[in-house]
Amino acid sequence: MTERIHAKYWLETGTDPRAAADAIAGEQSSGTFVALPGETRELKERSGARVERLEILGQTYKPSLPGGMRSNFYTQCELELSWPIENMGPSLPNLMSTIAGNLFELRQVSGLRLTGLRLPPSFAAAYPGPAFGIEGTRRMAGVEHGPIIGTIIKPSVGLAPEATAEHVRELVAGGIDFIKDDELQGDGPHCPFDERVRAVMRVVNEHAERTGKKVMVAFNLTGELDQMRRRHDLVLEEGGTCVMAVLNSVGLVGLHELRRHSQLPIHAHRAGWGYLSRSPHLGWDYAPWQQIWRLLGADHLHVNGLANKFSESDESVIAAARAVLSPVMPEAPLPAMPVFSSGQTGLQAAPTFAAIRCTDLIHTAGGGIFGHPGGIAAGVDAMRQAWIAAMEGVPLERHAKHHPALQDALRFWK
Amino acid sequence: MTERIHAKYWLETGTDPRAAADAIAGEQSSGTFVALPGETRELKERSGARVERLEILGQTYKPSLPGGMRSNFYTQCELELSWPIENMGPSLPNLMSTIAGNLFELRQVSGLRLTGLRLPPSFAAAYPGPAFGIEGTRRMAGVEHGPIIGTIIKPSVGLAPEATAEHVRELVAGGIDFIKDDELQGDGPHCPFDERVRAVMRVVNEHAERTGKKVMVAFNLTGELDQMRRRHDLVLEEGGTCVMAVLNSVGLVGLHELRRHSQLPIHAHRAGWGYLSRSPHLGWDYAPWQQIWRLLGADHLHVNGLANKFSESDESVIAAARAVLSPVMPEAPLPAMPVFSSGQTGLQAAPTFAAIRCTDLIHTAGGGIFGHPGGIAAGVDAMRQAWIAAMEGVPLERHAKHHPALQDALRFWK
Repeated sequence: MTERIHAKYWLETGTDPRAAADAIAGEQSSGTFVALPGETRELKERSGARVERLEILGQTYKPSLPGGMRSNFYTQCELELSWPIENMGPSLPNLMSTIAGNLFELRQVSGLRLTGLRLPPSFAAAYPGPAFGIEGTRRMAGVEHGPIIGTIIKPSVGLAPEATAEHVRELVAGGIDFIKDDELQGDGPHCPFDERVRAVMRVVNEHAERTGKKVMVAFNLTGELDQMRRRHDLVLEEGGTCVMAVLNSVGLVGLHELRRHSQLPIHAHRAGWGYLSRSPHLGWDYAPWQQIWRLLGADHLHVNGLANKFSESDESVIAAARAVLSPVMPEAPLPAMPVFSSGQTGLQAAPTFAAIRCTDLIHTAGGGIFGHPGGIAAGVDAMRQAWIAAMEGVPLERHAKHHPALQDALRFWK
Repeated sequence: MTERIHAKYWLETGTDPRAAADAIAGEQSSGTFVALPGETRELKERSGARVERLEILGQTYKPSLPGGMRSNFYTQCELELSWPIENMGPSLPNLMSTIAGNLFELRQVSGLRLTGLRLPPSFAAAYPGPAFGIEGTRRMAGVEHGPIIGTIIKPSVGLAPEATAEHVRELVAGGIDFIKDDELQGDGPHCPFDERVRAVMRVVNEHAERTGKKVMVAFNLTGELDQMRRRHDLVLEEGGTCVMAVLNSVGLVGLHELRRHSQLPIHAHRAGWGYLSRSPHLGWDYAPWQQIWRLLGADHLHVNGLANKFSESDESVIAAARAVLSPVMPEAPLPAMPVFSSGQTGLQAAPTFAAIRCTDLIHTAGGGIFGHPGGIAAGVDAMRQAWIAAMEGVPLERHAKHHPALQDALRFWK
């Protein structure tokens, strides 16, 4: 039996849902708007997309998106389609054109969102997946158990390399596990990549020699392919242990090539995710999206954070984190590490742990650490204690009684 | 004076528009949600994004997108921001993270759409732009004047290489200028790329030898980088004159690398454009989006078509086509050719010509050609005659009196 690709959608349509489902299936495989002489029954049987499931969820009187066909009411449904792998082969770029191609623009559609994806094993044979994942990241960061506590260099842009390194000096002295560049910081003339890496790694290496702990720094090497390769090599040469790329900025081919070249974990940033997801009636859920990047080789994937400063709900953040922690497919789990960020403090430790029941994650905090009256070391300690309390199921206030740094943190975390 | 990047947005916000504009500017440059000790006045002056313009357009009582801050009303405005190029250098991937990064998710935002982009000349120095553009495409296709009349191979997927070539045989015999693979057709086992190219080019080359006219075929080589390079080389070797890539499937780095390698015009497909644009309150206008791909090297860019079968309005199609025909910047026009498709017939010739006042375009029709009772040659002739009528400002019916193929076409075009 041929392997098939399954994709799930939330669909809203002004026409008969079955007709809409058939139109989408046709448009994204052997059909088009008109009957084709060459589209024989045999060809359609072999190459046509199949409507596997169509479940009516409800109706609305106003279309969620404009431009579609007019109707007195619009039916919302869950749709599952499948395609034979023979249509595109195990190719992620061609998969993209198929599952997320011209279908969002159809007139039959007044809302369409890709909510799920089930790929056959041949994709795992064709793509490498994360080279480091959870286990490799823990090894490289020297954090055997518990969450990896991290932070982001701020101001995002504007600091010169030496000022960045001075900032890093305080952070590593404070006992942090992980530091990342802001996604806006690339290789601008005010803070050239090479100088930044050299200045920062001098600090990180000195600290490692003294203490045995090499802090993982995710240097944002986002750029054109040659630049990314060259920057990766410099990070490696300077003893760095992580590189970062903005997925929507480099694209599928960019990440694939970076993965082929890289000898370091790839910290994958999702900047731009908002334009793919902020309308509930259009675009992508995180679950199918992150599968593609994990197959390509992302080791860490951003999932926002609980009680974040953005517009994303906790429910959506939890779903994203669980997706990153779930196997891409039973035959190839390809584990990656979720990265929680945005307005994070130790207050999010317990609800995050409750939601995902593990600590295989990077938890980054800015103000939640820097704001500590006892300084950065106390801020980092408070974050760790909050996680210990979460893992042990002890309320923060009680745990804080024996941990003064946490006690102080509870006065400014909010 | 430093070069600056200017981006325009349609913004809807539940807070004071000036505060929202400042928040976006801050988040996308040196600031963040909290005051930073390192963000000095001098640093902000140098690296902060600037609110260049903020014009109130109106108000609404319901937020267009969910998840933002609650308010009694939401203000809609036009916002222009600018950044110093020193923040990211002339790098398109890093530009993406800046102009279309984390801003769509801000709580201050209940609607945000990127509507315009003005880049400084250093981007044109850093990127090659289209290698062929309008003039090179005309030369390669052997179409000196008027539109390039094209079609798409259908069924999209499912035909074997020999069946595809037989289809192409009819098309070239019918006098077509341009043929493209469907964006769903890549390199699947039912229609391997190499076999398809060899079979199709045999037909195209035979025809060229006999008639002197080499029809341009855009072979969809979308895939991973090595695959694209290898496929490009095969097309070139077989005497082909065009390759096609799906932009959203290969990403920025993918197109950049293809352009560096390619010796043929790049036909750029926008499959997936719907998820970037279908909500009027989110995502991208075509004008800024296509600029990025032209800098990278797209020679042809899809713009849908007038009276199309999708949900896009004629107004939006015209704006897209005009954008593709406008200079990327005064210092570097980087001309590319718009491709009109979807439910096209000769009936769209006159309104298309009226809208863009030129014929530097590819006009693809499927049913509008195949449906002709006189066969493909008559269908192609009718398309050409419709364009001649449009250029001469003669009503179709009058022109048809002396052109029987057009006369017959007018009976089935609708």
